[in-house]
Amino acid sequence: MMGPMDETLYPVEQLHGFTARVFGHFGVPESDARRAADVLTAADLRGIESHGVARLHLYAEMFEAGRLNPRPNVRVLRESLSTATVDGDNGLGLVVGPRANDLCMEKAETAGSGWVSVCNSNHYGIAGWYVLQGLERDRINWSMTNASKLVVPLWGSERMLGTNPIAIAFPGLEEPPIVIDFATCTAAYGKVEIARRQGAKIPLGWAVDKEGRDTDDPDSMSDGGMLLPLGADREHGGHKGYALALMVD
Amino acid sequence: MMGPMDETLYPVEQLHGFTARVFGHFGVPESDARRAADVLTAADLRGIESHGVARLHLYAEMFEAGRLNPRPNVRVLRESLSTATVDGDNGLGLVVGPRANDLCMEKAETAGSGWVSVCNSNHYGIAGWYVLQGLERDRINWSMTNASKLVVPLWGSERMLGTNPIAIAFPGLEEPPIVIDFATCTAAYGKVEIARRQGAKIPLGWAVDKEGRDTDDPDSMSDGGMLLPLGADREHGGHKGYALALMVD
Repeated sequence: MMGPMDETLYPVEQLHGFTARVFGHFGVPESDARRAADVLTAADLRGIESHGVARLHLYAEMFEAGRLNPRPNVRVLRESLSTATVDGDNGLGLVVGPRANDLCMEKAETAGSGWVSVCNSNHYGIAGWYVLQGLERDRINWSMTNASKLVVPLWGSERMLGTNPIAIAFPGLEEPPIVIDFATCTAAYGKVEIARRQGAKIPLGWAVDKEGRDTDDPDSMSDGGMLLPLGADREHGGHKGYALALMVD
Repeated sequence: MMGPMDETLYPVEQLHGFTARVFGHFGVPESDARRAADVLTAADLRGIESHGVARLHLYAEMFEAGRLNPRPNVRVLRESLSTATVDGDNGLGLVVGPRANDLCMEKAETAGSGWVSVCNSNHYGIAGWYVLQGLERDRINWSMTNASKLVVPLWGSERMLGTNPIAIAFPGLEEPPIVIDFATCTAAYGKVEIARRQGAKIPLGWAVDKEGRDTDDPDSMSDGGMLLPLGADREHGGHKGYALALMVD
């Protein structure tokens, strides 16, 4: 496998096939495995390598640890004309997410809008993939997910919130579509990792250390540090990013 | 009338009655006038005096200038089970908004969710009022509106976006509900006005002057200055606030 700094390039078809075969190895049915590979390779193709095939080993480790169900019984717990709650049966998020998305788009076709929430699932890849699917149907799309706790509420003293991304896509009539996809913290965790690998400082406003003090040291995150919500501090609207993250959570 | 710094207190019933009579004076039917007064007094009661009865004179001036239709034919331009677009016929935003909100809540009752957009309307009061209405029906609520252009896109050189607020409310099961209501710029324009009245500086990150340079001078806003989107600069996620404002616009 290539490391993050490796210059080796693989054709996307080869990467896609490899990814699908890895999922297949863990018992994921072929059509699900291909869909999951779609989501991962789409991240690489959009330049979000942090969420692409480079993460495959994490999913593999979860399968090896028996923490993922390769053949989940994804089912609707409750629904209305335009909404549903889906139980992912602990399946791969890359499988459960796209199925919930399909249901959501079906509801939008009949009811004018669709909103589907998912429980018992896990990492679903880039939020942006889901809205791009709906964009192909010429619709406005939202996708949001909670995530591992890395973010401190404004004035808080511990990690309580995920980096909880929000993705939104709008079709354009004559102009290209607008596609938004961002973490609700000031800077995504991947940015801190990049700074650490480069031995660089991070800007003030990205993180606080375990005592809640402002820090420019990327290593603080591996020593109990916490990311700050979008806006960073009260004076610059940190309560707004906190509110957005809370809403997604 | 009391000035912003006047300490005179009025009972809310008196303020409400007065407000409704002013709207009635301009030909607004009584039930509409009372509803509009509901929205304005609710802002004062929530401590958002900048959007309360203190704004009544602005609506009055718009009526006097013939810019508002006191008896609008508010009608649905198109709709689906869960969505609608409403033409406000240039009525008072405080009348058109609540009617669209009613339609939205009706749709939510039957379709599971409702999304109503409005055109040919104007200032609809605090975004928070609308979500509080839905909260009474034990629903999750969103309300968003565009606004006068005061905000510069990240790295832009002119005002292109409104302070475009987003309000969201979630019912609590045992805990109190969560109610979010914020402008998508770093700091609301009212905060700049307060600093100006106090002769105080504003924090860097709130605004840029007409040349796009960082400024701590609240007077710069009356000299072609521009508010910055939530996140303020690229390093602190200003592109995210820009994206949110754009989405609302």
